[in-house]
Amino acid sequence: MQIQFWFDFASPYAYVASERIETLARSHGATVDWCPLLLGVVLKRKSADGSPFQRATEAEHRYRRRDIERLCIRNGLPLVWPTGFPRGSLLAMRTAYVAREQGWGREFANQVFRANFVHDRDIAKTEVVADLIEACKRPSGSVLELAQSEENKKAFLEHVEQAIARGIFGVPTVVVGDELFWGNDKLEEAFEWLERER
Amino acid sequence: MQIQFWFDFASPYAYVASERIETLARSHGATVDWCPLLLGVVLKRKSADGSPFQRATEAEHRYRRRDIERLCIRNGLPLVWPTGFPRGSLLAMRTAYVAREQGWGREFANQVFRANFVHDRDIAKTEVVADLIEACKRPSGSVLELAQSEENKKAFLEHVEQAIARGIFGVPTVVVGDELFWGNDKLEEAFEWLERER
Repeated sequence: MQIQFWFDFASPYAYVASERIETLARSHGATVDWCPLLLGVVLKRKSADGSPFQRATEAEHRYRRRDIERLCIRNGLPLVWPTGFPRGSLLAMRTAYVAREQGWGREFANQVFRANFVHDRDIAKTEVVADLIEACKRPSGSVLELAQSEENKKAFLEHVEQAIARGIFGVPTVVVGDELFWGNDKLEEAFEWLERER
Repeated sequence: MQIQFWFDFASPYAYVASERIETLARSHGATVDWCPLLLGVVLKRKSADGSPFQRATEAEHRYRRRDIERLCIRNGLPLVWPTGFPRGSLLAMRTAYVAREQGWGREFANQVFRANFVHDRDIAKTEVVADLIEACKRPSGSVLELAQSEENKKAFLEHVEQAIARGIFGVPTVVVGDELFWGNDKLEEAFEWLERER
């Protein structure tokens, strides 16, 4: 069975989940469809629905930071807080959609997450995205051209719209059949559900 | 070691956690301090800080409902959605503070959570709270009087203020030493941390 893993490179929780999902999937005999989601589009839609973007309070902000640090300790993951946060990731996200269509979605997503949250590289920069494409042994010139094509932009937006239409509102989200599981803390529960549905 | 479990009777996630916390604590050799938190006070403070209360979108609302239903299935817990939601729980919360001070905090909290989320009883009503006190084999008259005394109101508010001052912003929250763990999904991680700190 295939599950979907929805992510956005801006989210440190998605980074943590991105490092855990494949091992979990393998141990449950599942494969992963790496689906980029544009959080910006989701948030814009939310505020159009009359739900204002909620600024995290100081306490929430502190909590999340500590929570993510603990999750990295717990999972043996490296973490270097990006000196820019959040970094614009539209180009990287569009490229992630191309990579998904071409079958190297996981590899590229791992590269970008690690660049942002481990190596503190500015993933908003075209030359950094190009480097990461090359690290996946793909030709950066033609991939970037494709990523920025009208055709890809449109197909990617449609893919995001479909996600919103089925109720996805944040990242990371795992989809198992018709069930959504939101948050890194839900991965185990998602795969437990998959076993239940078998 | 003792951990704190912060709850509010309005929260279905706190209900789920309230049914799981003692078993987990026992299996890790810990005891639980059952601490009522007034979510209303927390939210008022938040909006005073310029962070408006965020109305959940339709999608988020649907998700949470399903999430809680799945959590109950997963944990073998009964759930009957309250026909009134959220129910005013100020009197029950004040009583929970009295119960905590008198050493029957857990018993009373379990009674109220189950009344609200299993038996669909209106926990906003004084006679229902009285019943639940009696179910704990305590005299409802004198307990209710104490719960509504100025002294108890003041002590309870101070206890809530201290929680806010140390960074608690939601329920359920588990406190292990200096570490906060927010959300029912975090219980296992909290006790894992406790083992780490030993």
